[in-house]
Amino acid sequence: MTQEAYREMWENLNLDIAAHDGLLGVLGKFYGDIYMSQKGRLQGMEYLDFVLSEVHGLRIKELQDAKAQGRKIIGTFCVFVPEELALAVDAVQVGLCAGADAGKEAAETLVPRNTCALIKSFIGFKLARLCPYTESCDLIVGETTCDGKKKAYEAFSEHAPMYVMEVPQTKTESARALWKAEVLRYMARLEELTGRKVTAEKLAEAIKTVNARRRALQRLNRLRAAVPAPISGRDVLLINQVSFYDDPIRFTASINTLCDQLEERITAGEGVAPKDAPRVMLSGCPMAVPNWKLPYVIESSGAVIVGEESCIGTRNTRDLTDESGQTLEEMIDALCERYMKIDCACFTPNAERLDNVETMAKDLKVDGVIQYALMFCQPYAHEGIKVEKRLTAGGVPSMSLETDYSMEDIEQLKTRVEAFLETVK
Amino acid sequence: MTQEAYREMWENLNLDIAAHDGLLGVLGKFYGDIYMSQKGRLQGMEYLDFVLSEVHGLRIKELQDAKAQGRKIIGTFCVFVPEELALAVDAVQVGLCAGADAGKEAAETLVPRNTCALIKSFIGFKLARLCPYTESCDLIVGETTCDGKKKAYEAFSEHAPMYVMEVPQTKTESARALWKAEVLRYMARLEELTGRKVTAEKLAEAIKTVNARRRALQRLNRLRAAVPAPISGRDVLLINQVSFYDDPIRFTASINTLCDQLEERITAGEGVAPKDAPRVMLSGCPMAVPNWKLPYVIESSGAVIVGEESCIGTRNTRDLTDESGQTLEEMIDALCERYMKIDCACFTPNAERLDNVETMAKDLKVDGVIQYALMFCQPYAHEGIKVEKRLTAGGVPSMSLETDYSMEDIEQLKTRVEAFLETVK
Ligand code: SF4
Ligand code: SF4
Ligand code: SF4
Ligand code: SF4
Repeated sequence: MTQEAYREMWENLNLDIAAHDGLLGVLGKFYGDIYMSQKGRLQGMEYLDFVLSEVHGLRIKELQDAKAQGRKIIGTFCVFVPEELALAVDAVQVGLCAGADAGKEAAETLVPRNTCALIKSFIGFKLARLCPYTESCDLIVGETTCDGKKKAYEAFSEHAPMYVMEVPQTKTESARALWKAEVLRYMARLEELTGRKVTAEKLAEAIKTVNARRRALQRLNRLRAAVPAPISGRDVLLINQVSFYDDPIRFTASINTLCDQLEERITAGEGVAPKDAPRVMLSGCPMAVPNWKLPYVIESSGAVIVGEESCIGTRNTRDLTDESGQTLEEMIDALCERYMKIDCACFTPNAERLDNVETMAKDLKVDGVIQYALMFCQPYAHEGIKVEKRLTAGGVPSMSLETDYSMEDIEQLKTRVEAFLETVK
Repeated sequence: MTQEAYREMWENLNLDIAAHDGLLGVLGKFYGDIYMSQKGRLQGMEYLDFVLSEVHGLRIKELQDAKAQGRKIIGTFCVFVPEELALAVDAVQVGLCAGADAGKEAAETLVPRNTCALIKSFIGFKLARLCPYTESCDLIVGETTCDGKKKAYEAFSEHAPMYVMEVPQTKTESARALWKAEVLRYMARLEELTGRKVTAEKLAEAIKTVNARRRALQRLNRLRAAVPAPISGRDVLLINQVSFYDDPIRFTASINTLCDQLEERITAGEGVAPKDAPRVMLSGCPMAVPNWKLPYVIESSGAVIVGEESCIGTRNTRDLTDESGQTLEEMIDALCERYMKIDCACFTPNAERLDNVETMAKDLKVDGVIQYALMFCQPYAHEGIKVEKRLTAGGVPSMSLETDYSMEDIEQLKTRVEAFLETVK
């Protein structure tokens, strides 16, 4: 499509064209600095570069085409919203978590100043009319996870077609019953929205599609245990970010191709960083596109990131849905069970996360863990204290950083990261 | 009891005696400045003054005596924990919310710096061994309300006998089912702890006891609609605070006596402040004992507080439990229903609170509302934005203050409150 045609599409979505042009300019430059400057990237990353360069172009065009065919677009902010259900009614699900410092002043008229950057960003993008994904949505599905999001959705619902699922706060039997009821309520809402029924056949197919994507990302993550690391953390973060809005089947194929190339590289003993580069794992809050600040700081300090213990990382891909269900009821139970394995810090207790973090750090042979919390994120700040204790007990060095989306603290982060890296190698 | 005997009791509770002496000294002076300096107080307040002066003495002695008789002490932090159930197994329930800036450094080793003062305070009191209530507890019951408390209980449970109830985050049918299951689970836990059964007879009596206390406090709150206001906000806040740890039957009787005196005063056209003193309502986070800072600032600026829309205020007393149930099952359903009426900001949506705030402001003929949020409290900060919109639309002036338990901002608060008061009269 021509730039002209894109512009028309954006106008139809009621974006603020001038501000949006500015955003794309900044994004392009940022991407060039952080991504295109990397050495020794795999050819398979070209697909990702292309997808990112067309993030507000071709993919949005595809969404409009899907809408023209009568398909619905579902926006989400959390890995708790089961994509399988959306796919089973031929809807397209896209992640709306936002990672840029845009529209903050506007956002602060709807949510308190002491709100994490991710929330302010998705609200800011909406109020400033900058996000073609948000504007394409027929339904935006929130969830009762942290206090910040739970309450922000109330304000957001005055500006967008919101629906909220209740995610319980514990994993008792009664909590699981609540979750199942919520999954069924959501399924009914999707059926009503699309005029389509979730059948056993459609849901089985959707479960396979989403599992296949998880398997490809699991494969990618396993390959990163190789020394030297075959791929940069920045690239894998990008892959995880793109997984939230790209077509799942196309995306899965491209990740498997990339993994083939990674395997060749590993066999050849090649890597993206020297053998002795410090291997770092990130753990904590999700990093939504284009929140590449900390990975860039870490990797430009000579380390290589080999794992992301976050929802834009392994928390979204670690668990598969059981595929053996035959009836719709069995499949829904399998879905409920799979989603209740998510070890989000919003749960209490959430001891499994400590085990998962430690296992992952050991499997990936990390030299240190950098815990990442968005400022004002209480769940991950609380768990950070426990994660640190656990890692220390297990002999894994770690540090905790709290930041937001501004670029003001970049030098300070660099100083702290460098000091940490010196202690781990 | 002699000071000697008290000291021995405190030692048996493993308090840090020197630090505790210091705390009592500060508390006594603070109480003198804020309470005893008031003019025109009612004689009925003597009971409250006495209770407060014996807060770590006589009442703790009573708890020890109850324990010696085989009764259990249950500590709570939230008005969601049904006191009726504790009373039905002859246990004593006490509130453990804390309102003093003690043990903050110690608390910050267990919870993040960005945690509200109330949470840091109850953790600090525990770690610094300052609270004889906490130390007397056989079971401490938390609840999944805000992120801060939910996660803090995990850390707290390493230091105290914790039990956590799941409070749902919405009020759908499925959420109510979860709540009922949690009430039953808690009841079973209490029965196990005490070796007593909750019978229909015992529960009916407990429901009546707690309702009677709520009715007395409702009566008190209604009397404050009189102009001039018959009682200070400081005194009523103290009454509400004491309601969380005093014996319910004795307390109810004393409040009714006080109300009799208030009625006489109202009939005589007398008040605690001039007729034209600005009438202010507080709305927001609970103010735990001895958090009297803001009420003192407001009332020493010439205004009179006529209502507290908070959990240490009307949120805890507005709704009664239906007393018509005959069977245990009916009574439990009535309890569940009553507790699910609580309009805590942790719920989403929580539209009923907006109605309740506005109705209360109008019933009490307030000149302005001061919204009070503890720093880092996300639920009440979010709702503050909505409450302000609603009040503005209803023609009620309002302002929002965010503070903690330190005394550093007292001058700044005074300046802001005085500026606000000038605009409302
Ligand atoms: S961190 Fe928790 S709330 Fe955030 S996306 Fe993940 S599961 Fe959802
Ligand atoms: S980063 Fe933390 S505060 Fe922000 S949306 Fe996620 S869980 Fe909530
Ligand atoms: S404000 Fe909410 S969490 Fe706090 S005591 Fe009240 S009901 Fe409980
Ligand atoms: S004041 Fe707010 S943050 Fe603190 S315990 Fe209460 S609801 Fe939680």
